[in-house]
Amino acid sequence: MDTAAPLSPTDRSTVRRGAKRARTDRADLHAVLDAGLIGHLGVLLGEAPVVLPTGYGRHGDTLYLHGSTGAATLRAAAAGAPVCFTVTHLDGIVYARSAFHHSVNYRCAVVHGAARPVTDPAERLLALEVLTEHLAPGSWAATRRPDRRELAATAVLALDLAEASVKIRTGPPGDDAGDLAGPVWAGVLPVRTVLGEPEPCPLLPPGATVPPRVAERALSPAG
Amino acid sequence: MDTAAPLSPTDRSTVRRGAKRARTDRADLHAVLDAGLIGHLGVLLGEAPVVLPTGYGRHGDTLYLHGSTGAATLRAAAAGAPVCFTVTHLDGIVYARSAFHHSVNYRCAVVHGAARPVTDPAERLLALEVLTEHLAPGSWAATRRPDRRELAATAVLALDLAEASVKIRTGPPGDDAGDLAGPVWAGVLPVRTVLGEPEPCPLLPPGATVPPRVAERALSPAG
Repeated sequence: MDTAAPLSPTDRSTVRRGAKRARTDRADLHAVLDAGLIGHLGVLLGEAPVVLPTGYGRHGDTLYLHGSTGAATLRAAAAGAPVCFTVTHLDGIVYARSAFHHSVNYRCAVVHGAARPVTDPAERLLALEVLTEHLAPGSWAATRRPDRRELAATAVLALDLAEASVKIRTGPPGDDAGDLAGPVWAGVLPVRTVLGEPEPCPLLPPGATVPPRVAERALSPAG
Repeated sequence: MDTAAPLSPTDRSTVRRGAKRARTDRADLHAVLDAGLIGHLGVLLGEAPVVLPTGYGRHGDTLYLHGSTGAATLRAAAAGAPVCFTVTHLDGIVYARSAFHHSVNYRCAVVHGAARPVTDPAERLLALEVLTEHLAPGSWAATRRPDRRELAATAVLALDLAEASVKIRTGPPGDDAGDLAGPVWAGVLPVRTVLGEPEPCPLLPPGATVPPRVAERALSPAG
């Protein structure tokens, strides 16, 4: 896929509600995905959808997911069931002058498709590196790589970013003109995700130094 | 339903992977739901699941959802399609001594069921009050109530909390004994969602006072 190509919505990835909030730039899709740490994977199990939080990592226009080989949702996805993977950032609570116009500011990426089980050993290692580095930059080089037993217990899936949509809301409430003259306060309460102080594992030797890969991330915005 | 009853898992709400992280106390379900601002609603549209971020509010053991009457996912859910509604809080990035044991700390509630369209005018108003107060406490009393046109444009759904599961991970990494002697740092980088300084709507008169319902929430943890 041409990674510089704009998002080309199919029927199901066309934003219909609040279409003015839709973005069609592939860079927006990448930015929303890259800023998140977990997404929500929807898979059909039997007759009903199941939605579970899932880690992920992006490599170009491939999204990698992983989990236990025993997880029913991953098994269904690996078998070719259609999936939906959604990453949402909540950016603000929008206070309006009417109950109806209360809203939230957010960035949301929705990816549709069928996942591909990743079986090639080299691509599996690449995917696990991408997943580890997305969650914990620097950890792939600094920590023990997966051994044969761990690899055997891990299902890795690839989801192409061919069919996706992005929706972003920013800014103040969209109040009705007739409500503007009233005395009601309106505006936005920003919501931010931040990283705190590192909490060392109790099994570390006393005084173990927090490495830069963790220390430099602490007390910063997540993503 | 007896709201003091423990969660009684059905087959699909039984936590199989990481069962030691499962909670069966209904108070845990309520706490995870009450601490969130948005959830992810999974609905089957045609052959494929669609997962979209959705506001919600809890009233006893009923979860209320709402949205535009034109939204395809809400229309499908209102027609009785099985849904899954998931609320996840990311609490920490777990750094381990191996790539494999990297993880996240989280609280997650998953609700399965079929939603009921709320048509009784009094219950619709109650649901909208619950939804508004969940997002913006104090706003229902302080702002203009929905008028007939707004009510006609709003779909309200009720989802019973009968079939639900809760999974919570806390604490340090679960490293293999053989990795403990190495020099690798391990621990948790906490992730927190916080509310920032209120940003007044540009259409407010200059110097408009931020009301206590907003000011007291600012600069505090979300939820």
